[in-house]
Order: sequence, then C-alpha cells, then structure tokens
Amino acid sequence: MANPTAAMLVIGDEILSGRTRDANMHYLAGQLTEIGVDLKEVQIVGDEPGTIVAAVQGLSSRFGVVFTSGGIGPTHDDITADCMAAAFDQTIDVRDDARAILATHYAKSGTELNTARLRMARIPQGATLIDNPVSAAPGFTVKNVHVMAGVPSVFQAMVASVLPTLTGGEPLISQTVTIHRGEGDIAGPLGALALAYPTLSMGSYPFQRDGKYGAHIVVRGTDVQMIDEAIAKLEAVFA
Amino acid sequence: MANPTAAMLVIGDEILSGRTRDANMHYLAGQLTEIGVDLKEVQIVGDEPGTIVAAVQGLSSRFGVVFTSGGIGPTHDDITADCMAAAFDQTIDVRDDARAILATHYAKSGTELNTARLRMARIPQGATLIDNPVSAAPGFTVKNVHVMAGVPSVFQAMVASVLPTLTGGEPLISQTVTIHRGEGDIAGPLGALALAYPTLSMGSYPFQRDGKYGAHIVVRGTDVQMIDEAIAKLEAVFA
Repeated sequence: MANPTAAMLVIGDEILSGRTRDANMHYLAGQLTEIGVDLKEVQIVGDEPGTIVAAVQGLSSRFGVVFTSGGIGPTHDDITADCMAAAFDQTIDVRDDARAILATHYAKSGTELNTARLRMARIPQGATLIDNPVSAAPGFTVKNVHVMAGVPSVFQAMVASVLPTLTGGEPLISQTVTIHRGEGDIAGPLGALALAYPTLSMGSYPFQRDGKYGAHIVVRGTDVQMIDEAIAKLEAVFA
Repeated sequence: MANPTAAMLVIGDEILSGRTRDANMHYLAGQLTEIGVDLKEVQIVGDEPGTIVAAVQGLSSRFGVVFTSGGIGPTHDDITADCMAAAFDQTIDVRDDARAILATHYAKSGTELNTARLRMARIPQGATLIDNPVSAAPGFTVKNVHVMAGVPSVFQAMVASVLPTLTGGEPLISQTVTIHRGEGDIAGPLGALALAYPTLSMGSYPFQRDGKYGAHIVVRGTDVQMIDEAIAKLEAVFA
C-alpha cells in the first residue's frame, strides 16, 4: 500500500523577501520521512488572504494531511487563523479554551492578557487545539490541516504534538554511496540499475571538491535487503 | 506602478525527503528583492513529470517570470527539460548549440561526451540557452521560465546570467528595529502604525533570548524617508 501523503504551506512575506531562511520545511520533511509519510509538495506564499485561502484549499483537497507554518502570532500581519476559517467555511472568534490557556500562561509572569495577545485565542469554531509547550499560544487542526507557528522552536514543539496522531506508512529507508566519478560516467549504469529495481528510487546528487567531480547516489525504498543488493551492484561497477 | 512579479519552482525528491536543505530559494529571494522584482510564490515538487508540468504551467500563467531549479543533469532522474517541453508544447532533442558547448568543455579534460552527458544538450526547440560558467551544461529560457541547475554554485552563476535581462522595479528597502518587549505589547502600537502608513509593509518577527522576549520589526517600502519616519515613531513609543 502506498504511504500516506502530506503537503506543507509556509506563510510569510519574510521568507519570500529573503530576510529569513525557512527552517521548518526541512525539519518537517525529515520527521515525516522517518514515520513513512510522503511529503509531496510545499508551497510558500506571502501574507495575502486570498492567496493563503486558495493555497490551503488546494493542498487540503489533494493530499492526506497538510501542515502550515507562520502567521498565528499577536500582530496585525498574523492572519492565518482567519484565513483557515474562511477556507473551511467556519466562524472564528476568541475561544474560551484557548483564552484559558493564555490566561494561565500570562498570569505566571504577571503579563497583561491584552487585546493583541487575545488575538492568539482566535480559533475557528470546529478546530482542535495543538499543544504549545514552548510559549503556550496554541496551534490548531481544522479538517486535515495542522496550523502551526513559524518560530522554529515552537513549530518543532507543535510537530511533536501532532506526529503521534498521524497514521504513518512503511518508513522510507535510504542508503547513500559516494562515487568519485563525474555524473556523466555514473548515469549509464545507474539508469540501468533504476530500471532493474523499479520499486526503489535512485537519486544522484553531484558535487565538486578540490576540482574533482563526484556524486552521492541515494537509493531509497522500504526493503532494506533490496537496497543493500542494489548498492552492492552499483559499487561493483565502479570498484 | 507595481513591481514585476516572480515565482520559483524547486524540483527534487531530495528536498522533500529532507535529505537536502534547499539553499537556492533563499538566494534567489535576496537577489530579486535587490532589483525590485517581487517573489510572490514558491512551489517545491518531486521528480514526477505530471506534477512538474502542471506546476510550471500554473506559475507561468500567474506570474511575470518563473525560475526553476533542479533536474537538468545527466542522470535518469533529470527530467526537467522534457517536462518543460511538454508544458509548453515544444519538441525536444539534443540541440547543436548545446552539444557544441559540451563538446568544447569535455574536450579540454579529455572526457568522453557519452550518451548520459549528451542528455544535458536536450533543450526544447524554442528555448534560449543560459550560460553556465561553472560546469558548462547550459540552462535555458522557455517562454517566461528560466530553467536552472539545482547545484547551488551553478544555480547562482545562472541567476547572474539571467538577472541583467530582467526589468526590475523600485528596489524594496527594509529597515529593522529590535524591540525588547513581548510581541503582545508591540502588536497594538505596531498595528496602528501599519494603518497610518498603508504603503509600507510592517512585519514582526519574535525571538526569545536568555529567557527574555523581543521582536525584530521590519518596515519595508520604496520610500526611504517614509520608512525612517515610521521607524522613529515606533522607537518613540518604546523608548
């Protein structure tokens, strides 16, 4: 059976302007691969309601599960929660369960739960909250979409809260062999090997070091014995 | 007048599996911002022809210019050129101009121009070549799509070849002020400021350091005097 599929929507002008280098996509990709969920597509969009709504609707309908990052803080440019409500035709307001979490958190430090902070308790009516052990303000799950923070430490904590709820597939195993030859020499034998093992995926990632060419050949699949066999054959060709 | 718009399509299973952390998107984002081209959307897809074709068609019709990275090497998983031909209804074969570039390059090192390497001369019939000063194998431009390599050093060299051909807009200027207060305290005054300066974009990027909260407030626009004025007002609030 094919593995469950996933997509990710990264939200934020700061990524598209080059100010911030996104770290969440790479983190999520590694986590999903470990539990056998195939991340099939990522979209990165700016802080524009129409674009966010259309993107999440498209991804939600095409993939088993969707993860979003960014735009759920207290400032005026944090519009993700409202966009999710619009995308899935739900009402949205400050919710008592989310407000209680924030009230408890801010009471500890004597910080005022003002209008701006209360914005983080705006949650679509049908959503389930995602625990945020780092800074309290919750993420939420609406339909098949997990809506999480953009700050990497918070994003990672929310991913840890969500992962146990997912049904994984067979974990993808990958093995890498490094061949110190130009990719143009590797391509022929590698292509033949890929044809001989149609259930394995083989990728070639070239590099240049001290003026010499080489490539990391990555063989991926779910059958470790078959992967070992394919790797051995490839190594034999270039021994 | 609004700035020209751009999108990017990152192609490669290795990004989605978490094996490789993409570096090209962040690089391109910075370069485009400098010349006043607005990067509006990025899509990351795997090595699947149908997905690549649909994605590039969608982006090409919605944005002024599109950049792709990945999948133009000599191995069996390098399918980008064929996908671009399919997407724009062009024939594709080994082209004499591209073959000549490769022949000259490989002759220098006495490397055989074998079938695999010739694959890198497969270029859609109506495309214009993009110079590759690093490793010779050219990128190409078809319609409004610039097709470039995934290896960062080659990608960057190709971006340098393409940028002078673009019509830029007014460069986006950004200034950052760091405020050592919780985002919940900043949000109110910042929201009011954003309303007072509708032509500026203001973003808040929170951080936590040594247990204390703060946020980098980034004000972006094309009028440096107006940006200075807004920053001064914000600093006055939190002085």
